[in-house]
Amino acid sequence: MRAFVYGGAGQSDWTEAPDPRVIDPTDVVIRVDTVTICGTDLHILAGDVPEVRPGRILGHEAVGTVMDAGAAVTTVRPGDRVLASCISACGRCRFCRSGSYGQCTNGGGWVLGHLIDGVQAEYARIPFADLSTYPLPGNVTDETAVLLADILPTAYEVGVLNGQVGPGDTVVIVGMGPIGLAAVLAARLYSPARVIAVDKAENRLRAAERFGADVTLLSDQDPRAAVLAATNGLGADVALEAVGSPESFELCTTLVRPVGRVANIGVHGKPATLHLEELWDRNLTITTGLVDTRTTAALLDMVSAGQFDPTPMITHRFALDEIVRAYDVFSRAGETGALKVVMARP
Amino acid sequence: MRAFVYGGAGQSDWTEAPDPRVIDPTDVVIRVDTVTICGTDLHILAGDVPEVRPGRILGHEAVGTVMDAGAAVTTVRPGDRVLASCISACGRCRFCRSGSYGQCTNGGGWVLGHLIDGVQAEYARIPFADLSTYPLPGNVTDETAVLLADILPTAYEVGVLNGQVGPGDTVVIVGMGPIGLAAVLAARLYSPARVIAVDKAENRLRAAERFGADVTLLSDQDPRAAVLAATNGLGADVALEAVGSPESFELCTTLVRPVGRVANIGVHGKPATLHLEELWDRNLTITTGLVDTRTTAALLDMVSAGQFDPTPMITHRFALDEIVRAYDVFSRAGETGALKVVMARP
Amino acid sequence: MRAFVYGGAGQSDWTEAPDPRVIDPTDVVIRVDTVTICGTDLHILAGDVPEVRPGRILGHEAVGTVMDAGAAVTTVRPGDRVLASCISACGRCRFCRSGSYGQCTNGGGWVLGHLIDGVQAEYARIPFADLSTYPLPGNVTDETAVLLADILPTAYEVGVLNGQVGPGDTVVIVGMGPIGLAAVLAARLYSPARVIAVDKAENRLRAAERFGADVTLLSDQDPRAAVLAATNGLGADVALEAVGSPESFELCTTLVRPVGRVANIGVHGKPATLHLEELWDRNLTITTGLVDTRTTAALLDMVSAGQFDPTPMITHRFALDEIVRAYDVFSRAGETGALKVVMARP
Amino acid sequence: MRAFVYGGAGQSDWTEAPDPRVIDPTDVVIRVDTVTICGTDLHILAGDVPEVRPGRILGHEAVGTVMDAGAAVTTVRPGDRVLASCISACGRCRFCRSGSYGQCTNGGGWVLGHLIDGVQAEYARIPFADLSTYPLPGNVTDETAVLLADILPTAYEVGVLNGQVGPGDTVVIVGMGPIGLAAVLAARLYSPARVIAVDKAENRLRAAERFGADVTLLSDQDPRAAVLAATNGLGADVALEAVGSPESFELCTTLVRPVGRVANIGVHGKPATLHLEELWDRNLTITTGLVDTRTTAALLDMVSAGQFDPTPMITHRFALDEIVRAYDVFSRAGETGALKVVMARP
Repeated sequence: MRAFVYGGAGQSDWTEAPDPRVIDPTDVVIRVDTVTICGTDLHILAGDVPEVRPGRILGHEAVGTVMDAGAAVTTVRPGDRVLASCISACGRCRFCRSGSYGQCTNGGGWVLGHLIDGVQAEYARIPFADLSTYPLPGNVTDETAVLLADILPTAYEVGVLNGQVGPGDTVVIVGMGPIGLAAVLAARLYSPARVIAVDKAENRLRAAERFGADVTLLSDQDPRAAVLAATNGLGADVALEAVGSPESFELCTTLVRPVGRVANIGVHGKPATLHLEELWDRNLTITTGLVDTRTTAALLDMVSAGQFDPTPMITHRFALDEIVRAYDVFSRAGETGALKVVMARP
Repeated sequence: MRAFVYGGAGQSDWTEAPDPRVIDPTDVVIRVDTVTICGTDLHILAGDVPEVRPGRILGHEAVGTVMDAGAAVTTVRPGDRVLASCISACGRCRFCRSGSYGQCTNGGGWVLGHLIDGVQAEYARIPFADLSTYPLPGNVTDETAVLLADILPTAYEVGVLNGQVGPGDTVVIVGMGPIGLAAVLAARLYSPARVIAVDKAENRLRAAERFGADVTLLSDQDPRAAVLAATNGLGADVALEAVGSPESFELCTTLVRPVGRVANIGVHGKPATLHLEELWDRNLTITTGLVDTRTTAALLDMVSAGQFDPTPMITHRFALDEIVRAYDVFSRAGETGALKVVMARP
Repeated sequence: MRAFVYGGAGQSDWTEAPDPRVIDPTDVVIRVDTVTICGTDLHILAGDVPEVRPGRILGHEAVGTVMDAGAAVTTVRPGDRVLASCISACGRCRFCRSGSYGQCTNGGGWVLGHLIDGVQAEYARIPFADLSTYPLPGNVTDETAVLLADILPTAYEVGVLNGQVGPGDTVVIVGMGPIGLAAVLAARLYSPARVIAVDKAENRLRAAERFGADVTLLSDQDPRAAVLAATNGLGADVALEAVGSPESFELCTTLVRPVGRVANIGVHGKPATLHLEELWDRNLTITTGLVDTRTTAALLDMVSAGQFDPTPMITHRFALDEIVRAYDVFSRAGETGALKVVMARP
Repeated sequence: MRAFVYGGAGQSDWTEAPDPRVIDPTDVVIRVDTVTICGTDLHILAGDVPEVRPGRILGHEAVGTVMDAGAAVTTVRPGDRVLASCISACGRCRFCRSGSYGQCTNGGGWVLGHLIDGVQAEYARIPFADLSTYPLPGNVTDETAVLLADILPTAYEVGVLNGQVGPGDTVVIVGMGPIGLAAVLAARLYSPARVIAVDKAENRLRAAERFGADVTLLSDQDPRAAVLAATNGLGADVALEAVGSPESFELCTTLVRPVGRVANIGVHGKPATLHLEELWDRNLTITTGLVDTRTTAALLDMVSAGQFDPTPMITHRFALDEIVRAYDVFSRAGETGALKVVMARP
């Protein structure tokens, strides 16, 4: 088959690779029908994720058709159209037992396109299929479903649920890249009184408005003052960090009211400063998190029921074998306006 | 009357001061029967708390007898023996309505011995008496009760409850000063499997054992390695910071397992580093907090029912007019072994 | 002044009554600007609420203008336009301290138009004003606000919050009278996948659709079978009882899935049968509740922010002195189609 | 092998049965080392559980040694000493994914000795072994562990956790049979201020005292009056029903304060009356539940750490082939004083 293979920092190609097959009785092999690219994939290509070794097939977000299933797989069968989640879950370790699939200690967690071969390929092996793939309702398209492989559950679990967004809340979301926009969409499910979007780019703030943000603020125009002004001097109930920089995390801790919540969604490469000399007595709750995808089934129900539609996040569409071009467009998002790019089997 | 009055950095005295009186209809005036000194009082004396102005009577932990009550006070009356809490609560602002008394925006919060005159005096005015004083059951001594003015609810709310200590948990508490020891005592209420105490002083670790710690570790002997060894390489479920230094906070964030909790109890004067590059994907919950004293009534019930006994924290006893000497003993705790010093009306 | 006075079972009149005045320092007196009638008022008129004595002014839902305030009142002042909540809260007893205002043991709870004179009058005394009245934002009309005195917080707290409605849930609401319709509206705030409305009257089901119900079922057409069919045989996540009859409560317990929730909102006059022989192993959570109105401020924020609009519940409008006619229309709801009737000061 | 086989109402024998073997790749076969009898087994023998067919091997609480394991089993291996839980969990269905193992829809739940052959035998097949068996720490004896197969997790999850027992609470437990006594033990983990035990037999109340009850009340001596007296007229915070009769359930609903919790643990064969006409406005939470055994691993950690010791529940010990005699002693508990009877492989 052909697959998108990482060849070391700065090197990658759509090239020949061995066909995957069922190894463990809990595996399935899928034919990849629709797949997307994550910001993390760009970090891997840049050589920033050293545990990804050259030769690795990338990708952890796909919709596909089950071709073969191990003897212990009971929830999907060959022919099923399934979502392959970014997180694999053994279902047995202490973390999986409490739904913390992202922390699986038994060979799961984020492994696809990271520690084992991923889904940017014609076929892929998905381990622990019973807890890591989801049969798709007929009225959920591949394009919708693929957005539930990673970005939507991440925004929902790590942002909205960790941040305990509730009806009537003022929610600030810092960073209006794809994950921030997904957080706007997901926060809406809890009917906040207002969602305030912060970014440094005007065009991203315009996108935020389309996804449901009520107020938009440029990062360099004193967002703290604006948030205080919008909340009678109190501060926001919740701030979601969706950038992954020390500055935006630190900004978030200044935007929330006493007894507020800061939920970090961003992937960080550097430490941040926590101003405990100002925060120790403000009764904040700060959370971090890799997604568990424990809400994937519920999110599928919601899109199937028409509760929200994430497909406007898809800005560019390609054939699967155009993936090199798709990476190029996605990597130049500032210029191309790319949010999510999707590749489909012709 | 006589009172302990702050006179500017490094200056203070037990001296003459005007008798307090009821000003607002929600005030009471108490005769102070038993009072103690908090570590924060030492910070004030050192000049580190600039909002405390010279002339201020210090102290925010007392047991006394109600002498006079304003027209709107309904829960206590003259003659009642009461605990005066370190936190005053208006009961009406949005924070008080949800039990976040420490964040009161209406003249309450931590005001005693801080923004208004305190209780290290023969008499004291206590504002918002209905929500800030607690009638004492007959079988609770003054000495027991005075420990429920601040240190016990702080350890319980900001440490144990924020840290969500539960049955079977491994709890690490960093810092075995009075607040850390109170946290050992309070954590026991939730039957953790083991409480691990960390401090740099051997004698404090011995005290920790007496208060119920199962394991004790010196700070300079790689507590992280020891905690991992004690938990099969997993890490603790909860870490409580009870020092107030960047080092001990940062240590706490390395001691907990994925999906663990870090509850900061310490008062900080400097920022800490939050290693988000390592913590972003570990699903931690970090909390900060000033005490609300919303659990004071429940804690009183518990000591009245004999569930725990905090009085071993009291190492030194003085008459009220010996307070200057008591401050001296308390300020040289490393040398005197002082934990809590208590002064009583003769 | 003139007021609507209960004169014993079947007797009542809009008649002369003494002007109210401030008695306790925590009281206010309001001029009543807008007022409504609750189903409970009809029960009182029928003589079913024996603790209401002849001579009592009825009514517990009003918007008014503060005319006079006691010395201890700090959150509102004369001239303020306020919502007078159906629940009065002393703010000091153990229940009020935890937000359970409806269970106040200190003279509050549901007292207006019940144990003390109510608000269906030209003027009314409101006790414990700081916690029982709410200043109104300029953009919230009297008509909107008066629906937040009782019916909306009841539907939200006792129904939606007790029932733990969440995104993606299937919610069944049995009874589409005013409170059931308010529950449809309130449930929407948590983005359930579908709201199923059950009633015996077709026209009420049509109203349910207008308020946001996705599916409507007639009570006599096997709602259990329909709910199972709509949920792949599983049952609903939550059932809300909004009638107050044994039959509808018992129906609710058959409609939910294992680990589901049944939240009773209805006022009951008779016992129900709890089929523990079928329910003991289904891990249900059943809740009952009188409203606390602890969410009133948040609901006001939400309507002020435009999140929902309850005013379509108002079907009839009268001048205040037409209240006898309003009662007549409201009491014949089956015939008049009345949901909420509102009387306003001319 | 030999096994205890149900032969229809009133009929049973320790007799020859086919050796079990691994059927599904997720099965193990254990050699039964220690086993106990549950009150439910007596109901089966009486013919009260019609889904148990003649020929069925009974028993759902055992400790054993793994003899053989299917290809997909990863958490235990032949030779391991394991607890076999009363609940089998597929780990994949929507209920198992959220820890509601007792409601498994995929072949698990309570199946052992019920829908498939059980563990009162020399050998037993345990399905879904990864989530249904627990390797035992060296310092936990068979006798301790076998009490964690059903009775302890039931008391803890369905009683203590569902009832939200907390520090300082007053907890009433109605019924001091084995499950009630286990609930006393389990409630202690949350440091209630007082545990009040109710039963109709004096000797069971004496046992309750030994397990940690603070107050004991005979059922026929107005327990409601006594509970009110012990709580200043308020009522208990939590009542746990541990009998399984309409009377004791109804009693529980009268023993709790407003905003209290009633957790039903008992197995019921008849409906109860729910006095909604008195309870609708008391803001109660009532829960029912079959155990999930989701806390088994944590309970094992706790007994391994010496936090509590359930072995005093064991009153009689037999060899495995004396099981018929053991059933006789257990079935005449009123006379023999039996709580738990344990049979061990010689």
